[in-house]
Amino acid sequence: MRKILAEILTIGDEILYGQITDTNSQWMSAELDKLGIKVVRKTTVADTEQDILTAFEEAESRADIVLITGGLGPTNDDLTMPMLAKHFNSEIILNNDVLEHVRDFFERRGRVFTEMNRNQALVPKVAEVIHNDLGTAPCTWYERNKKVFVSMPGVPYEMKNLMTTKVLPKLQTTFQTPVIYHKLIKTVGIGESFLADKIKDWEEALPAHISLAYLPSVGHVKLRLTAVGQNKDTLAREVQGLIDGFLAIAGKYVYGYDGMTLEKAIGEMLIEKGKTIALAESCSGGYVQHKITSIAGSSAYFQGGVVPYHNDHKVNLLGVKEETLAEHGAVSEACVKEMAEGVRKAFGAEIGASSSGIAGPGGGTEEKPVGTVWIAYADENQTIAKKLQLTKNRILNIELTEIALLNLVRKSLTD
Amino acid sequence: MRKILAEILTIGDEILYGQITDTNSQWMSAELDKLGIKVVRKTTVADTEQDILTAFEEAESRADIVLITGGLGPTNDDLTMPMLAKHFNSEIILNNDVLEHVRDFFERRGRVFTEMNRNQALVPKVAEVIHNDLGTAPCTWYERNKKVFVSMPGVPYEMKNLMTTKVLPKLQTTFQTPVIYHKLIKTVGIGESFLADKIKDWEEALPAHISLAYLPSVGHVKLRLTAVGQNKDTLAREVQGLIDGFLAIAGKYVYGYDGMTLEKAIGEMLIEKGKTIALAESCSGGYVQHKITSIAGSSAYFQGGVVPYHNDHKVNLLGVKEETLAEHGAVSEACVKEMAEGVRKAFGAEIGASSSGIAGPGGGTEEKPVGTVWIAYADENQTIAKKLQLTKNRILNIELTEIALLNLVRKSLTD
Repeated sequence: MRKILAEILTIGDEILYGQITDTNSQWMSAELDKLGIKVVRKTTVADTEQDILTAFEEAESRADIVLITGGLGPTNDDLTMPMLAKHFNSEIILNNDVLEHVRDFFERRGRVFTEMNRNQALVPKVAEVIHNDLGTAPCTWYERNKKVFVSMPGVPYEMKNLMTTKVLPKLQTTFQTPVIYHKLIKTVGIGESFLADKIKDWEEALPAHISLAYLPSVGHVKLRLTAVGQNKDTLAREVQGLIDGFLAIAGKYVYGYDGMTLEKAIGEMLIEKGKTIALAESCSGGYVQHKITSIAGSSAYFQGGVVPYHNDHKVNLLGVKEETLAEHGAVSEACVKEMAEGVRKAFGAEIGASSSGIAGPGGGTEEKPVGTVWIAYADENQTIAKKLQLTKNRILNIELTEIALLNLVRKSLTD
Repeated sequence: MRKILAEILTIGDEILYGQITDTNSQWMSAELDKLGIKVVRKTTVADTEQDILTAFEEAESRADIVLITGGLGPTNDDLTMPMLAKHFNSEIILNNDVLEHVRDFFERRGRVFTEMNRNQALVPKVAEVIHNDLGTAPCTWYERNKKVFVSMPGVPYEMKNLMTTKVLPKLQTTFQTPVIYHKLIKTVGIGESFLADKIKDWEEALPAHISLAYLPSVGHVKLRLTAVGQNKDTLAREVQGLIDGFLAIAGKYVYGYDGMTLEKAIGEMLIEKGKTIALAESCSGGYVQHKITSIAGSSAYFQGGVVPYHNDHKVNLLGVKEETLAEHGAVSEACVKEMAEGVRKAFGAEIGASSSGIAGPGGGTEEKPVGTVWIAYADENQTIAKKLQLTKNRILNIELTEIALLNLVRKSLTD
């Protein structure tokens, strides 16, 4: 079967000048890859007419699919729409549906709709408009000589929503994409090379039509199984058989599959067990609570929490003993245990969890250097604490503490 | 003065397939921009001979400088060196200096030097070799018809070291780089089109050698002024004069310049005023506290906070009145005001700030649909509340609440 080829085109001076990072094109590449569509080139061009037109022509000559982001704002330096009109020899017209949507979008937010905002409803006549639920810039779709152009806004959550709900399904029906089945196994608490060692025999025994990729990120390792064949159900069954084998070897590190996140997995465990949780975060500064509450429906199991950044509040709000702080300091096993037990009691939750550490860059000592962190879990039967020795980077330390604390809760709920 | 144009070329399947994010090209763009070298295009191509050669030819036809990263490993799919040789009609030779360096590099790390590693010492005869202190892949420099190609390894810290210590200085001496001066103005609390309307006259009066770009992101609009001329100090003075004019029109939306963030700006204001802050976050779920504590040194002004996700805790920990909740509900002006005042008192802080709202997707009613959020600020003299009508997207609502609450604190501290 002939490979379907795609190019990703990003329009915008702000990316060329290095003022913002393009995270869109990686996400788009990965999504296209899952459909068996091969990205052959990524290009970023300036907000200038000739550069955009040339890029359109070059991409059309090489690829079947051209995905474009950016350049759709209401101002004069936003050129994507007029250049698409020129490329497809089409005139620009006012699209009333888009106009209504933009006007409505502003009204619902109590903002004044100006003449300039009208510009976002100007689209090439030849375009098929795809509705953008989350923003004012429309998505447009073009077909010519069996090739497809899609223009999307550069705002990541608008683009991702459009791609997931509309553009990718439409590409699948427009092109003959092969049958590919993917499954992501999500692990936490083990490094990439240790995991690779552990599953070596299992990996070597994979059949030829099923491949494995390691996708490491901060604190996590994802494994992607990709099966290519004729029938999705058959592939899914084969992959499930392989996963059963994987679980027998490394199951204790697995918190879920595909779109599952650690915070969501814990939420599901808490709902299943009918338990609630409360958090006391010092060094992680509210980040664990943010992750937990980013999950829809978390109010069913999250009672709330405290960020007792100053020691007084550890005493007043959580009942940490003055002697504990005097004897061991705030970054200690004794203190995080009292914090976890205290927050559990203060919020009337079945489970309490806590963190206290030196995130850095300041505050380190010889005995407790930057990156020293204690975390704890408490329920009616037990209180468990764990010491982490992390990095010199504040932001990374906050993130690693969050993952380690959620993983401590996960493991404690599993046992 | 003619602009020096550059293109950045990244070689590698792993980026096209979305398996790794390209962070190099943003960094390179920003560095070139500081020298007044204009990046006109960024391209990523696959590890295939024809794609690489075509990309070389296209880039050479458009730019003065072509910076290439990737494809320099010792294996057969690393094609950058042979393709550079082909492009410049040169033969490949073994460079003894590089060979010595690679051998030494392996020996010093106690690793075995293999035949395959010899490949990294094979370079086009026409190339000028630039020594790579931090790795085995050499950097090579090519000149033809007043155009320069530079090939560098894709490993970020190797590339950055080469660029900073050798490539950028060599580009400055090879090309007559113009004097350029940038300033970013950072605003919050006003949309792009409203700001554009407001500063229309100011923008139209900008001199020809100073240009303006709008860089919107969620909840923020950044404005970049770029001045080109003969003397950096003169340009800086001119830009400062323009900024003074801007501040007279839209100063109340400005929270800083260049690398400043909203949370950092508030931290600096609090330090200057010698005040501390405490947070009570319901719908924002700890995200504001996370942003505040992500700043190094925030313990100087952040006392701590509470995430009273359940109403009981609003009453118990913050002293919100049962009657307030019964009469107005948790998502109300009365409740957020009592929360802000309560958290201020509970943490002994000069300033209290709070949020309560319906983040969604569940929990909305006709009277209070998803996206209805109240925020408040309290200090010894006043308590201010504000109602927001946000989106249907939970994650976005959390982020927009965070920005609005920090902005409310900023404005209250400014008054």
